[in-house]
Amino acid sequence: MKRFVNDPKNFVPEMLKGIELANPGKIKYVPEYNLIMRADAPRDDKVSIVQGSGSGHEPAHVMIVGKGMLDGACPGDVFSAPPTDYVVESSKLLNSKKGVLHIVNNYTGDRMAFEMAAELLEAEDVTIATIFVDDDVAVQDSTYTVGRRGVAGNFFVIKAVGAASEQGANLDTLAALGQKVNSVARTMGMALTGCTPPAKGEPLFSLEEDEMEMGIGIHGEPGRARKKLVNANEIVDEMLEAVVSDLPYKSGDEVALMINGLGGTPISELYLLYGYAHKQAAKRGLNIWRSYVGE
Amino acid sequence: MKRFVNDPKNFVPEMLKGIELANPGKIKYVPEYNLIMRADAPRDDKVSIVQGSGSGHEPAHVMIVGKGMLDGACPGDVFSAPPTDYVVESSKLLNSKKGVLHIVNNYTGDRMAFEMAAELLEAEDVTIATIFVDDDVAVQDSTYTVGRRGVAGNFFVIKAVGAASEQGANLDTLAALGQKVNSVARTMGMALTGCTPPAKGEPLFSLEEDEMEMGIGIHGEPGRARKKLVNANEIVDEMLEAVVSDLPYKSGDEVALMINGLGGTPISELYLLYGYAHKQAAKRGLNIWRSYVGE
Repeated sequence: MKRFVNDPKNFVPEMLKGIELANPGKIKYVPEYNLIMRADAPRDDKVSIVQGSGSGHEPAHVMIVGKGMLDGACPGDVFSAPPTDYVVESSKLLNSKKGVLHIVNNYTGDRMAFEMAAELLEAEDVTIATIFVDDDVAVQDSTYTVGRRGVAGNFFVIKAVGAASEQGANLDTLAALGQKVNSVARTMGMALTGCTPPAKGEPLFSLEEDEMEMGIGIHGEPGRARKKLVNANEIVDEMLEAVVSDLPYKSGDEVALMINGLGGTPISELYLLYGYAHKQAAKRGLNIWRSYVGE
Repeated sequence: MKRFVNDPKNFVPEMLKGIELANPGKIKYVPEYNLIMRADAPRDDKVSIVQGSGSGHEPAHVMIVGKGMLDGACPGDVFSAPPTDYVVESSKLLNSKKGVLHIVNNYTGDRMAFEMAAELLEAEDVTIATIFVDDDVAVQDSTYTVGRRGVAGNFFVIKAVGAASEQGANLDTLAALGQKVNSVARTMGMALTGCTPPAKGEPLFSLEEDEMEMGIGIHGEPGRARKKLVNANEIVDEMLEAVVSDLPYKSGDEVALMINGLGGTPISELYLLYGYAHKQAAKRGLNIWRSYVGE
């Protein structure tokens, strides 16, 4: 598997430097902690929102730092949780009088790093609240988790708390809002091929030319089932059924519908999938209030 | 090569339907002519801007229809020029009192379709002006062109004429502006792997595991040279030299720098490439006034 890389050890810092250079005056990169932060953060009239998780899932989270979204993201290396001290130092740099909100994906490594960081930060009188995101309906426990995984549902949680924080909402309000959004978000993933981390240089797993994996995790960890590849509409049917029946959503509900790629799917195919998913969701009586298609 | 598809013959219409459904009230899909148009077009206080080219290059052009960008895009099938009558009927639907601007990529098929359409439209008293885009420095003539190819430079041309048209600029002003932007835009492409059109189901060409193709066209047509794969920085060095020396740009020039993926490159890698390109361009004395990274 070929990719654009220099020394794989520098993949993450080189990417982070690119993000800073592409957003002059808006984004600051702090190499000591792998931190990407808003240039105008922290602001004492606003809770600071901090996310951290493995790299390799871009645009999450280092490319969604900005107005109305995150104040900072401190990623780990590719598919690794950030070190606890990076979370601590990043949160101290971003500390505001209104406190710091941590958004944590429900992976064992991320939870450990953030729970330990929160203890250390509280000992230094930083006010912290934490939201855990666990929207993925595919599997209950997985290679990386106890309970459900946090994946694309993050987007909705961040969008909601980011907007409310700009309006001055306090830490408790934001934590409650984030938990509420997470509680009504449901997603599922699938893959046609394996992913290739830059340091490894070959796919984490292989699928045959006529195979797909349903319910796969974002680190290539196993999903529900490896199956014979079917056409686009049949894939949507299976995923929509899994997602919609899980909440369960019911006829008349207003929903936001997202088709999210995992980094290598042409956007033409994502719109094709969206079109059919929209029609099928509408047939179930769901009111599609907002649409998102992309990465 | 696996992809999300139903019947490949319906790939383009199914994608176009998805675009309409994801943008209710803003985008209209007219299946008779493969047309994606602004729901509020045509407006008589504004020149209508129409682009058409092969599908398979998304987001160009059907996903850049909207305020400040295109009024309509009438694509052909994957990697095929739109039929002349689609261009004619789309332009008639979008005809405004201020006229219609056609933006045409410099490919033989696109030129033929649009030049013939312009004659037919003028015979029906539709006022047309045409801009040709040919920003690609890689090769002079190619499998698909006489002269240079039009590729990512389109983005800057559309952004400029789209903005000016919202401010009420007339047809002659827009045509001159578009030509000016095209005249100072330079790009080059390269590929690590071949692309797979949905109807074909296998790559148009193959590269060995240690090969890359420099200067490749967006339909997989040959570039300058097939070479041994090198690291990301060396790829940027070669492309930047080709692009910067072509105009030639000179120290002190203000530039917009874009790193554009071709549909399957993770955005993390695009930012890594951007970071190094930015530094190298700055070393040459170029003032990077604006940055674009993505598809």
